[in-house]
Amino acid sequence: MYNDIIELSKRRGFFWPSFSIYGGFSGFYDYGPLGVLLKENIIKLWREDYLEDGAIFIDTPNLTPEPVFKASGHIDRFSDLACECDKCKTKFKLETVLKYNGINAVPKNLDEANEISSKNNLKCPVCGNIIKKVYDFNLMFRANDMYLRPETAQGIFVNFKLLYNYNKNRLPMIVGQAGKGFRNEISPRQSLIRLKEFNQCEIESFFDPDSLEFGELYDYLPVKLLPNTGDVYKKTVKEAYESGIIPNQAMAYFVLKTQRLLNKIGIKNEMLRFRQHMPDERAHYAADSWDAEALIDDEWFEIVGIANRTNFDLTNHGNNSSESMTVKIGEKEVIPYVIEPSYGIDRIILSVMSQSFYKRDNGYNVLALNEYVAPFHMAVFPLLKKQKLQEKAKELFSNLFPKDKYIIYDDVGSIGKRYARQDEIGTPYCITIDFQTLDDNTVTVRFRDSMQQKRILISDLVSQENPLSALNALKIVQ
Amino acid sequence: MYNDIIELSKRRGFFWPSFSIYGGFSGFYDYGPLGVLLKENIIKLWREDYLEDGAIFIDTPNLTPEPVFKASGHIDRFSDLACECDKCKTKFKLETVLKYNGINAVPKNLDEANEISSKNNLKCPVCGNIIKKVYDFNLMFRANDMYLRPETAQGIFVNFKLLYNYNKNRLPMIVGQAGKGFRNEISPRQSLIRLKEFNQCEIESFFDPDSLEFGELYDYLPVKLLPNTGDVYKKTVKEAYESGIIPNQAMAYFVLKTQRLLNKIGIKNEMLRFRQHMPDERAHYAADSWDAEALIDDEWFEIVGIANRTNFDLTNHGNNSSESMTVKIGEKEVIPYVIEPSYGIDRIILSVMSQSFYKRDNGYNVLALNEYVAPFHMAVFPLLKKQKLQEKAKELFSNLFPKDKYIIYDDVGSIGKRYARQDEIGTPYCITIDFQTLDDNTVTVRFRDSMQQKRILISDLVSQENPLSALNALKIVQ
Repeated sequence: MYNDIIELSKRRGFFWPSFSIYGGFSGFYDYGPLGVLLKENIIKLWREDYLEDGAIFIDTPNLTPEPVFKASGHIDRFSDLACECDKCKTKFKLETVLKYNGINAVPKNLDEANEISSKNNLKCPVCGNIIKKVYDFNLMFRANDMYLRPETAQGIFVNFKLLYNYNKNRLPMIVGQAGKGFRNEISPRQSLIRLKEFNQCEIESFFDPDSLEFGELYDYLPVKLLPNTGDVYKKTVKEAYESGIIPNQAMAYFVLKTQRLLNKIGIKNEMLRFRQHMPDERAHYAADSWDAEALIDDEWFEIVGIANRTNFDLTNHGNNSSESMTVKIGEKEVIPYVIEPSYGIDRIILSVMSQSFYKRDNGYNVLALNEYVAPFHMAVFPLLKKQKLQEKAKELFSNLFPKDKYIIYDDVGSIGKRYARQDEIGTPYCITIDFQTLDDNTVTVRFRDSMQQKRILISDLVSQENPLSALNALKIVQ
Repeated sequence: MYNDIIELSKRRGFFWPSFSIYGGFSGFYDYGPLGVLLKENIIKLWREDYLEDGAIFIDTPNLTPEPVFKASGHIDRFSDLACECDKCKTKFKLETVLKYNGINAVPKNLDEANEISSKNNLKCPVCGNIIKKVYDFNLMFRANDMYLRPETAQGIFVNFKLLYNYNKNRLPMIVGQAGKGFRNEISPRQSLIRLKEFNQCEIESFFDPDSLEFGELYDYLPVKLLPNTGDVYKKTVKEAYESGIIPNQAMAYFVLKTQRLLNKIGIKNEMLRFRQHMPDERAHYAADSWDAEALIDDEWFEIVGIANRTNFDLTNHGNNSSESMTVKIGEKEVIPYVIEPSYGIDRIILSVMSQSFYKRDNGYNVLALNEYVAPFHMAVFPLLKKQKLQEKAKELFSNLFPKDKYIIYDDVGSIGKRYARQDEIGTPYCITIDFQTLDDNTVTVRFRDSMQQKRILISDLVSQENPLSALNALKIVQ
């Protein structure tokens, strides 16, 4: 599946390695014409889903000055233990080298790492030389006298008081940011899994620390839940909260919201699970974390992290800047608590594509994207390359286009090949102008998933404010 | 006007200086909750306008490896002549210091600059010390072993062949990219005018060099045109092309398209002009350039640059990479020519806000944004903070929200104050639930620009697939 997706993505224009004409640089990928549309659609669903909760959004720079990350702890603590071979000069994450040498220890800091390294002769996995140099490798990119942000979140925290004022001094307050994050990964993983520059959609929700509550938990599909006790459940999120598996209502609310949003984007519920971090696995700022994980082939990947950041960030910015981060709630002064659902858009894209992909019996590829995220809603074809059919098809295209910009016209190759091309990029509907159209102004609508065909009057299609609704209705009618 | 916009923007949440709690860092601005919506709307108009031309879009990394900018000329030539005072350590653009010292010369390179500097005693504008150190200051940010892109364009050029393949090997081909650009400006200008990190929407259109032609020139509003001959015209773009003022049809097409798009975004046609660069003013890659300039107060600012980049970039990437950039057109092999309309989104935002701003006779602010770009389409109010009115207003809000997410509910303060708040952020329609609503299910619609009010049945509003259409229709009805 994964390999099929990588091949399809490059060939059809979803994504491909960046700068390939200069030899390629690992950790960087481009979104091509179809990938841009898919990505924009996913970000739109995320934005509109949080608008329902009254979220506000902000857009802050990637370049960030040092004091921000000194306060946030990223300069001191956002690093991987790394090592470098003196001989072949390869850099590794220390954990890779320990694993290669059959050592199970997990050093928690540089001192422990040096101790392990000096007691064992760690062999370089590439050249076999003994590795001596172990060090802390900070994952942030330095850009002149600034840093590139490793997460969009800090841009929200440093603006807390301006946002709180905008929000008429009310909590809870939900603030989102869609943007880039940058991490100088020692070993970037394949394709979109671990990038040095990645797309993030983060939500920081601010609460009165005494009342981590938001919205309403409702019944929804049961989902696999793995708390860090080692238990495994399949329950609704509401049940999981009521039985104490998820520790607070706000955390449960965002787990539920994330489950529903990911399902809407196209992550299958049975290929999704929520896993709570072990205490030693959490980021330096988190008191509790639940990851949404999606199945790609046989492996689970984190695609969303929902963290209870407590008042860690606001407290540190309050202590290190000119701004107080306390707010007055009734008679008390508090620093708000933060629950953060953070969406990794690149991995979500890879997961959705992978989970939507299958092969027909004839070996042809299908990408069964739903209409919310599919790059194109519909394709318009003349049956054959005959002038009358082409003219009619172009006329239909021009009439549909003002109402829906996500349409594609194609008259290259046989009709079967054109159906196959659209199946492979996820277009749910193909509309064909044939000879009968010239007689009775009906067109053939062909459905991607069932491959069934039905006829519809052109006027019934173009008279709709939203032509997609007409096609959806047609699909349902028996 | 400009000062009013800056004040309003910070107070109401359009934009403000970044990292202000750490003292502020010049050249960086945040978009707040209203600014994000305005920006997204403008980018959406840009994208959909170019979709009409069959444009495809791409999204490539900000971090870019050195060979790309070595080939593009940015490492060798993308610099400003700068100088630094030995005593007070202030850095200046050389032109600032020359102007301060009353010297009119415009040095074209470092040798000429050093000659001028050694012949004159250049005084530091800050401390009066004699400045000795003149140097080339490269405007790119260096990030570890990479660069931050100073324009999104190169991400398109290096992918030319993959895109051409996606486009079924056809020219013209129109490719767009919306994203960030980074320039380490020596002296950032006020607010959004010259940022170190900025928002760009670039289009690279690729042509057979023998046929710089695209689309159709149609009649549209006359606009002020300043070719580099010193003449000034007010003509339609079509006339300007036909009379030879604009040198080729494709350039004229993009000037016309840009004029119409900017008008649609909210740049007033009489506060817009197109000015051709003087030969010594052009970027290193350009053979011809026309800037769209917008009037803010009494000053014209470049907001869009339309450049004929010839085959400069593709030729250089072809010579320096593993990829040939030639394509076969009929019997000949050519390297395509490029016309690039490049939109500076931050300056467009500042221009639109500034040109839309006025004060009513009572001194209240109005931001007359059109509905395409306004952060909110409509506001819903209960007339008073009475339970029955509030319930009814919230019910209406919930019924409208699934159809239009860009609605705001407000029940804080007098109805007059609430109208004033919406006027100031550009909301075109306010809908008020009053006591009559409880009797007959009609609401008051109040129009921002005329301040007139009309009643409409709730059912006529919520039955529409797009409630904004109903309000637009109501505005027109006498």
